[in-house]
Amino acid sequence: MVMDHRIRHGWTPDGGAAASVPPSAVNWLRERIGTLTPSAAVPPGSAIAVPPSALGEAASGDLAGAVGAAHVLEDPRERLGRAGGLSYLDLLRRRSGKATVPDAVVLPADSGEVQRVLEVCVAHDIAVVPFGGGTSVVGGVAALRGPKHAVIALDLARLDRLVSIDPVSRIAVLGAGVRGPDAERLLGEHGFTLGHVPQSFERATIGGFAATRSAGQASSGYGRFEDMVTGVRLATPRGQWRLGVAPASAAGPDLRALAVGSEGTLGVLTEVALRVRPVPESRRYEGFFVDGWDRGTELVRTLAQSGLLADVTRLSDPGETEVSLALNGGLKTRLLRRYLSARHLSEPCMLILGWEGLSRHRKETLAVLRKSGAVRIGRSLGESWRHGRFAGPRQRDTLMDLGVCVETLETAARWSGLTRLREAIRAALTGALGTPVIMCHISHAYETGASLYFTVLAARDGADPVRQWQRAKHAASAAIAGADRPLGTISHHHAVGVDHAPYLEGEIGRVGVEVLRAAKAAVDPTGIMNPGKLLG
Amino acid sequence: MVMDHRIRHGWTPDGGAAASVPPSAVNWLRERIGTLTPSAAVPPGSAIAVPPSALGEAASGDLAGAVGAAHVLEDPRERLGRAGGLSYLDLLRRRSGKATVPDAVVLPADSGEVQRVLEVCVAHDIAVVPFGGGTSVVGGVAALRGPKHAVIALDLARLDRLVSIDPVSRIAVLGAGVRGPDAERLLGEHGFTLGHVPQSFERATIGGFAATRSAGQASSGYGRFEDMVTGVRLATPRGQWRLGVAPASAAGPDLRALAVGSEGTLGVLTEVALRVRPVPESRRYEGFFVDGWDRGTELVRTLAQSGLLADVTRLSDPGETEVSLALNGGLKTRLLRRYLSARHLSEPCMLILGWEGLSRHRKETLAVLRKSGAVRIGRSLGESWRHGRFAGPRQRDTLMDLGVCVETLETAARWSGLTRLREAIRAALTGALGTPVIMCHISHAYETGASLYFTVLAARDGADPVRQWQRAKHAASAAIAGADRPLGTISHHHAVGVDHAPYLEGEIGRVGVEVLRAAKAAVDPTGIMNPGKLLG
Repeated sequence: MVMDHRIRHGWTPDGGAAASVPPSAVNWLRERIGTLTPSAAVPPGSAIAVPPSALGEAASGDLAGAVGAAHVLEDPRERLGRAGGLSYLDLLRRRSGKATVPDAVVLPADSGEVQRVLEVCVAHDIAVVPFGGGTSVVGGVAALRGPKHAVIALDLARLDRLVSIDPVSRIAVLGAGVRGPDAERLLGEHGFTLGHVPQSFERATIGGFAATRSAGQASSGYGRFEDMVTGVRLATPRGQWRLGVAPASAAGPDLRALAVGSEGTLGVLTEVALRVRPVPESRRYEGFFVDGWDRGTELVRTLAQSGLLADVTRLSDPGETEVSLALNGGLKTRLLRRYLSARHLSEPCMLILGWEGLSRHRKETLAVLRKSGAVRIGRSLGESWRHGRFAGPRQRDTLMDLGVCVETLETAARWSGLTRLREAIRAALTGALGTPVIMCHISHAYETGASLYFTVLAARDGADPVRQWQRAKHAASAAIAGADRPLGTISHHHAVGVDHAPYLEGEIGRVGVEVLRAAKAAVDPTGIMNPGKLLG
Repeated sequence: MVMDHRIRHGWTPDGGAAASVPPSAVNWLRERIGTLTPSAAVPPGSAIAVPPSALGEAASGDLAGAVGAAHVLEDPRERLGRAGGLSYLDLLRRRSGKATVPDAVVLPADSGEVQRVLEVCVAHDIAVVPFGGGTSVVGGVAALRGPKHAVIALDLARLDRLVSIDPVSRIAVLGAGVRGPDAERLLGEHGFTLGHVPQSFERATIGGFAATRSAGQASSGYGRFEDMVTGVRLATPRGQWRLGVAPASAAGPDLRALAVGSEGTLGVLTEVALRVRPVPESRRYEGFFVDGWDRGTELVRTLAQSGLLADVTRLSDPGETEVSLALNGGLKTRLLRRYLSARHLSEPCMLILGWEGLSRHRKETLAVLRKSGAVRIGRSLGESWRHGRFAGPRQRDTLMDLGVCVETLETAARWSGLTRLREAIRAALTGALGTPVIMCHISHAYETGASLYFTVLAARDGADPVRQWQRAKHAASAAIAGADRPLGTISHHHAVGVDHAPYLEGEIGRVGVEVLRAAKAAVDPTGIMNPGKLLG
């Protein structure tokens, strides 16, 4: 199914239901971050200047030969629909009438056609940007042409099939263009699920999940997306590449790990073989409050190191707890009031635990929570969170309309360095933005450490809002990168794209960058694949 | 601690206690595989012709400058001690007075000295074979010089320290030369364990485990070695390389997966950061019998796909069950008789389950076993297996003395292809060896598939025993590699080395090989690192 792409002034598809933010929350925000200047009006698509396609007739004809003329789109509206991702900066720019637009959108039907498209692009020296859900928030699908004279968006929407399923081995092969909900529907017909539910779930694709090393909200139960990948099929300028013969191997380095996370710079993931699991019989989400960040992280660490994590485990810091209650209003606020009045917690931290049928230890987990003094609110809070779990990006749209500078960033570190890292990032954001509201949560916990996910709200700088966020993002990234050595990873699950590329060498070393460049040169000798991403 | 290396005519250190094989077992073997010609006599070390060192005075001097003259050994006996690994063919060759010997043994003290050794070797164009426990069974430490004029064994025995420990994050950094038992001792002082117990445990090293993607017997509980690796430090000809900032990351491809499994071809692993766990409070091993291979694999698959695997899970096929009882005699045989008489199982398959404190589901696991008709023998059988878990390679020495052709090989496949793969390998080995005894077990089970580990016994061909096993090994490898596409991986945990290199391209593709070559060229432009391994 080819989605009707729009110019995408927000995460919410144009015409889709906007997320509401209650007036009380808006007032609360104004009190916290200052005067807001609404800017709901967005220019119509036609207001973005779309230059004529630089593809040229010969290349256009060869592409049509590869995929059929109906699947080579040079219409400005289609090209605008693949003009970059969905970061705050992407949206800001498009709202102000600016977009870097590919010269054509090419929609191959299968792995073979993807391969032929690459051959045409090598022959005509055209840059290729693989395009799945287009949800990158780090510039990963920016239509950059690098030194090439033209760039296409290689839209994988037609690779939307369940290619095969091996129910005995519990492995399903999905086309790279299958979106999250469609994957669940296709697998559900066979009684299986992936269980991969990142916030981008509704729009993002299997290929994108793999290319960016996505992590879903239920990663404690189902694993990160890379943990599910048993095999990959890529089209590269040097030919087809298949990996993943066995459940485990010692046949040299695990090259799947090179394909996964390559962000379209080595080739195009066309099919992904994935470990699937039976659809759970029941789900149970519960909400708790813990007193203070230190006690909360200690609790999550204890669970992670005891094998007692719920399948979804998410701890909000005091700031996020406060804001999420204020922004959502209603039930949650009343619950918090009840809770606060009864318990006198000085710095309540919301903890959401979800059991999806993987962890068998709910009772033991609850016992650890009781021992730590966590206050159990119950299923209402848990289900309320689950209900709104994909709402964040839509709320960002609404907040942007209201004049808020609103974006997220994320990292991960060892347990022993987590608090220091959180404080360093908070200081950096505060230094750059004045009086922002900074929310933080642990969304993914491991035996050796955890991720930190930040949401930042500030009054938008009307004069230069792009620069405002660039400054803040740079400050946060510099804090993560550290003075001598990294305090955390530059990305736990958003990937590198354009935005994080300057920080990659600090994390993987000069030798690491040289190895990546060499691998790229081996499979993409003329450098057509996703220029400017990952390696900058 | 520098081990006193010997010529190594067997796995058992010269002078060590040989494993006994009871006379009844020898008689049984003769009945099964035919006349045996004992050849216990091995030539003394001096009988192996050791050519003069080709190192040259200048290189020798520079190496002495890097690590101290006392740590550059050109003595023939020391060089013989690092002349290759411990495969059946390695032992056969050394027993017949042949060995490929390095020109010197160099023993650096730390990462910095390893780096300096590489610099000297680049400058003098000398090949480097990283040498840990020397237990490779695939030629991984063969002293090949490739096109270089000299080759050194870079022995990591002095990198034997616990470099650091972060008990909060449960991460320990160990020197590459730390041997299995020493790792447990060093970590045990802090209350931690790795839980990594491959059959090579007593001799092999941390660096070797990582370089070869080792899998221990308790992999269901503790994971494969690569699952434990949170970071690595390598010395490469292009400089130091450190990886592993966070517990999880999306900062591009996980390059740790390129370092792990690189088998010394990219550089020398000098330190490995590892996730550790508390020493378990108790261990429990139990033995069972299941009727038939199909029912047994179905049972293990059910356990693996239900999250109910014991930390050690090992299913022997009927052939291995028969032989292991016959070879071990005594208690086990009596148990089997009791069992057989009572239950009338037509094809008993021994199943060993071990709980090391990781799986919390022993009772649920036992319930599944009961339902499948498995017969529980109890702890005696389980403990008996545990007691002898590292004995296999020593028994091989004794069997070799008796004139047996005895070697192991291993692979892994999806559940849906496991039986076909086992049959293909059995047919290949039978075709090559006449009437061998073929034993097989599942040693490592995963949600999507399992490993198969074969032990082969045949009457040794007195005329050309090397060729005899090469033929059998090639037949088995060809069966694994399949006609069109691989039925399994060419190695689940023995790695590639020299022996499996011809089959690598069939598994990772032409593109995969090109990527590995490119990565190697980037970090080792003059090709000094472990020539002839992995990429052939």
